Amino acid sequence: IVFAIRHRWLPAICLVLQIILIILFGVLVQYNHDTDAKLWHKGNQSDYENDFYYRYPSFQDVHVMIFVGFGFLMTFLQRYGFSSVGFNFLIAAFSLQWATLMQGFFHGFHGGKIHIGVESMINADFCTGAVLISFGAVLGKTSPVQLLVMAMFEVTLFSINEYILLSLLGARDAGGSMTIHTFGAYFGLVVTRVLYRPNLDKSQKRNSSVYHSDLFAMIGTLFLWMFWPSFNSAVTAHGDDQHRTAMNTYYSLASCTLATFGMSALTAHDGKLDMVHIQNAALAGGVAIGTAGEMMLTPFGSMIVGFLAGIISVLGFKYLSPFLESKLKIQDTCGVHNLHGMPGILGAIVGAVTAAAATTEIYGGGMKDVFPDVASQARDSFKQGGLQAISLVVTLGMALGGGLIVGFILKLPIYGSPSDTICYEDSIYWEVGSPYQRDADNVLSRPHQTISPIHKYLAFPPRAK
Amino acid sequence: IVFAIRHRWLPAICLVLQIILIILFGVLVQYNHDTDAKLWHKGNQSDYENDFYYRYPSFQDVHVMIFVGFGFLMTFLQRYGFSSVGFNFLIAAFSLQWATLMQGFFHGFHGGKIHIGVESMINADFCTGAVLISFGAVLGKTSPVQLLVMAMFEVTLFSINEYILLSLLGARDAGGSMTIHTFGAYFGLVVTRVLYRPNLDKSQKRNSSVYHSDLFAMIGTLFLWMFWPSFNSAVTAHGDDQHRTAMNTYYSLASCTLATFGMSALTAHDGKLDMVHIQNAALAGGVAIGTAGEMMLTPFGSMIVGFLAGIISVLGFKYLSPFLESKLKIQDTCGVHNLHGMPGILGAIVGAVTAAAATTEIYGGGMKDVFPDVASQARDSFKQGGLQAISLVVTLGMALGGGLIVGFILKLPIYGSPSDTICYEDSIYWEVGSPYQRDADNVLSRPHQTISPIHKYLAFPPRAK
Amino acid sequence: IVFAIRHRWLPAICLVLQIILIILFGVLVQYNHDTDAKLWHKGNQSDYENDFYYRYPSFQDVHVMIFVGFGFLMTFLQRYGFSSVGFNFLIAAFSLQWATLMQGFFHGFHGGKIHIGVESMINADFCTGAVLISFGAVLGKTSPVQLLVMAMFEVTLFSINEYILLSLLGARDAGGSMTIHTFGAYFGLVVTRVLYRPNLDKSQKRNSSVYHSDLFAMIGTLFLWMFWPSFNSAVTAHGDDQHRTAMNTYYSLASCTLATFGMSALTAHDGKLDMVHIQNAALAGGVAIGTAGEMMLTPFGSMIVGFLAGIISVLGFKYLSPFLESKLKIQDTCGVHNLHGMPGILGAIVGAVTAAAATTEIYGGGMKDVFPDVASQARDSFKQGGLQAISLVVTLGMALGGGLIVGFILKLPIYGSPSDTICYEDSIYWEVGSPYQRDADNVLSRPHQTISPIHKYLAFPPRAK
Repeated sequence: IVFAIRHRWLPAICLVLQIILIILFGVLVQYNHDTDAKLWHKGNQSDYENDFYYRYPSFQDVHVMIFVGFGFLMTFLQRYGFSSVGFNFLIAAFSLQWATLMQGFFHGFHGGKIHIGVESMINADFCTGAVLISFGAVLGKTSPVQLLVMAMFEVTLFSINEYILLSLLGARDAGGSMTIHTFGAYFGLVVTRVLYRPNLDKSQKRNSSVYHSDLFAMIGTLFLWMFWPSFNSAVTAHGDDQHRTAMNTYYSLASCTLATFGMSALTAHDGKLDMVHIQNAALAGGVAIGTAGEMMLTPFGSMIVGFLAGIISVLGFKYLSPFLESKLKIQDTCGVHNLHGMPGILGAIVGAVTAAAATTEIYGGGMKDVFPDVASQARDSFKQGGLQAISLVVTLGMALGGGLIVGFILKLPIYGSPSDTICYEDSIYWEVGSPYQRDADNVLSRPHQTISPIHKYLAFPPRAK
Repeated sequence: IVFAIRHRWLPAICLVLQIILIILFGVLVQYNHDTDAKLWHKGNQSDYENDFYYRYPSFQDVHVMIFVGFGFLMTFLQRYGFSSVGFNFLIAAFSLQWATLMQGFFHGFHGGKIHIGVESMINADFCTGAVLISFGAVLGKTSPVQLLVMAMFEVTLFSINEYILLSLLGARDAGGSMTIHTFGAYFGLVVTRVLYRPNLDKSQKRNSSVYHSDLFAMIGTLFLWMFWPSFNSAVTAHGDDQHRTAMNTYYSLASCTLATFGMSALTAHDGKLDMVHIQNAALAGGVAIGTAGEMMLTPFGSMIVGFLAGIISVLGFKYLSPFLESKLKIQDTCGVHNLHGMPGILGAIVGAVTAAAATTEIYGGGMKDVFPDVASQARDSFKQGGLQAISLVVTLGMALGGGLIVGFILKLPIYGSPSDTICYEDSIYWEVGSPYQRDADNVLSRPHQTISPIHKYLAFPPRAK
Repeated sequence: IVFAIRHRWLPAICLVLQIILIILFGVLVQYNHDTDAKLWHKGNQSDYENDFYYRYPSFQDVHVMIFVGFGFLMTFLQRYGFSSVGFNFLIAAFSLQWATLMQGFFHGFHGGKIHIGVESMINADFCTGAVLISFGAVLGKTSPVQLLVMAMFEVTLFSINEYILLSLLGARDAGGSMTIHTFGAYFGLVVTRVLYRPNLDKSQKRNSSVYHSDLFAMIGTLFLWMFWPSFNSAVTAHGDDQHRTAMNTYYSLASCTLATFGMSALTAHDGKLDMVHIQNAALAGGVAIGTAGEMMLTPFGSMIVGFLAGIISVLGFKYLSPFLESKLKIQDTCGVHNLHGMPGILGAIVGAVTAAAATTEIYGGGMKDVFPDVASQARDSFKQGGLQAISLVVTLGMALGGGLIVGFILKLPIYGSPSDTICYEDSIYWEVGSPYQRDADNVLSRPHQTISPIHKYLAFPPRAK
């Protein structure tokens, strides 16, 4: 019966949520100056000055990270590829619309209307990123309905936290070490803690990769890695700021990659490399440079940050994750604590220290772009650094508190989440074909014949054809 | 013997077509103002004003959609991945060259020469898109020679139709709901109708996906989905127009995705999701916003369009496609009627209505970019809307009539198309390896051992090694 | 014991190299004018004039080619996907950092400091491309430590050669037909010759593809193909030059693709197409237009070059590679001689001829961008052409001589390269899972059960779990 409810819920929640979104957009959302035909043509500016040309290429790179990057990174599981890439698609498409409203409510409200353009699109994708990080923590153990409910609450809390940090505290966090990575990771970790499954070992055999699923995951890894410079620089100030941020991220990631390969071979059995490390830890350099990337960190500083992030991340996968699972009952499917949690905190600390060390000697006229409050003498660098540190604490508080509440909401037995014996399994949500349909070729169709053993765990018999 | 002919035809047609293209380019094609060293340096414009910087990023996104998007979307078939991505590559590489000439003949002829630059490259890729849509309808049932012949005729008819719509009727269709999607879909559907195979059920077992082929197809889906905002905005006017078009498409697609997931779970057996819907219907929002995307449709309007497109498309896959196949004998392999046909018509209607509703109150000085004929008072909005509607009728006429003629040309028994028993099968066109070569590892090589049963359907014995 | 050494070397070399790089960056590297907050804000220029906006989209495309393009192109081997994409990732991340220093030392040294920005990032990625080409020649037969040592030397020699060509001889080579492709290919070919393995046939069964590995490789092929116009135009002069280069490359590649399909079907058994040709030879058009792409070659000329490149490349795969292997003992895993070697030489020759034919009549005011030495009358076109030809000879000399020395360095028996019986095999470097872990699903886990036969060739027993 729970099954039946779930299967009736998903269509309803998708269609109803979308209709609500459409109505809210109709009431609240308007084109901004750069997207409105009338407003844009009122001024005398050249068409070439439209913000589209200075943000849209970065937006597209971020967009690829959200849909292909996160989506394929999570296809590493042997029998959860459809769900990884498919649910990623679903909750991202929902979150970016909901985030437009939530972020617009806090940041872009003009005369009762939310004004949108390419910058709000990037920010909506950023907020979506945080939701997808949390998705990584609960991957394989949650129904799509649960994920949509989680996304609804998380986007809201993300927007509040972002508002406190960027607007109230005046913190800087262009690449989201705090707002996106720390928030998304710890939110997700608390949710997965609340949803702890004591008998998850019954699905353990499916909680692993096969040869080709690891290659699919590398598609996700590489698109995240390559486009991370665009991610961190997407909403920084124009000119030297975007340029510098992209370059700092580029060197941080390169440095992190060598640290990851080194540490993976150092810690792994027989000195062999572990795909899990390469797929994940090599990205920690992008996370850890998220706050300080726009600052005058120098390539030298960026490489140190990336190096430390790679080391921390591999050690986390190797030693901390098993500990968290066995002692703290945190079942973190994708290891988001190692990729987003710890490197996010590292990034926040590096940002606070770099901000505190900022001087006019170093930044010159560029101070107003990076630290506007310091340039306007509303505060000094040291206070900026302190507020950056406070921002980290606020973020952790919001993530842990929010995750706790949302976790209990998600624990209600109404969403039809999979039982402990059928986690990490596509066939309960997706048509994966009957043996008849796929039988053309002996071996290729074999995987589908082996679906049958799973059916015995299900509340309903296999479909007759 | 037919087999032998086909196998001699393919090299000949590739090489001869390319030599003809080279000669025609030599006679007819010149650099335009922005690509010619001498012409560009005659003026006093800044290098930064070269159109390259305002079109090329969009061009690259479109390029990815054509080669990776369409190519991988069609790899869903279990034994037709090489052909899907390979023939897509071949006919796209041919079509973009041929389209440069055909479109240049109709649109860019200056003193007997065709002038080319990044905008003509985008338009050539667009025309190629229409051919690839038709390819989707006949996928698995046609030889590469047949496909090249189809491309040759279709590019020509596409260019004539585009000329009638954009130049003679003054219609607006920046994202090609009519010129690309409606034309490509109905052209391909008539071709596949003429090429009807009554005994195709003998290949039915191969007309389906396997687990990993569905994941490969998702690569295509996501790159199409992510870059569709670039597609629709690639050739609109600079400034607010490109910006607005990209944003409208972004929200249309997001809305369409939730509608698709909702409808897929609603209509499918057991409430499970169907990969075919996710791979295809989630893209219908991009198709349906192709005409009106540049207009002041508002995000609200865009989301309604996307929502309807997703619903129509899933219902088409579920109920209409089986009907078309059984009653109208239209064997539409990829379901292009659901992804491109109906959503394309929807897009044309939305465009006509939105155009008819355009007022100076809304568009201000931007009217001249979106509706130049209305801005110049050559016609009023209502007439513009009417001409948009007429354009849809013209497009359908050209597609149906053209498809009929080309279908009969392709029916000639000279192209060596596969017999009904070996459709959807790579091994008749591609070296897929002998058992000996691939034997390193028992299971991985197994698929190749199972090729042998297919050989018995072939007119020639397996290769000796 | 050698095994043990290798397995201790890899972590050490990764971590130590990265620490050395960090120190050198700390001592030598600074932000350039466009990335430094103070310097940039000293002038009065608009933020929109920052070079970021005119180079970064091209940089991102090049970046995708290096990591996804090269990485996935080499996943065609059935049991070497992890190593292909993983080692590609490792040596690219190292090489781009090392290249920043080496190229900076030769080209960007200002007052004892190397100044960096987006253009140096593109050049670093370019140099990395040469290393990855050489990697293709030795793929499957070298340990990661060996590859890092090779990269260290090759980057150095690349930078010297580039300095001789571009700075001393004043040659033009924007897309690197000589500096990247010819150098990388012949360097790698000599290295693989020195590392000749007489008993490599014992691993021959693994030196081939399987169905899905060929599809993964097509991801690499297509991203290389699509973004090659960005590669060749990434560092040319702004304005018409970048625009023209991208367009010439676009048409060269399209023409090359038809030539490749034609020649593949013409030369292959039964007229079937060979995936190896499609994956590789279709790219030769991008290589061969690397030098002349920025010149006024015309689309007509570009298509001829692409056509010839495709033909040469397929013939190379079909007839020359087996000859090189059997007679000259050059075991060229990826056939880099056919994709980069011969087309690179063709590109150099086309560049020399096109340069010699340059006149002010054709180039007008654009002469100063394409041939600054001719525009300043420091030399005439004919001499420019001659110096281009000399550059090819210098490049071949540097590649052959350098490859010889580095080959012998790599032959030292200290790097733990795999024995002849276990080449082209991931499981010696990567955790590919024990049968227990992957057993969830009968068939999908089967590949891992079949690892066992390989263990008998290894110097150590399989891990106990």
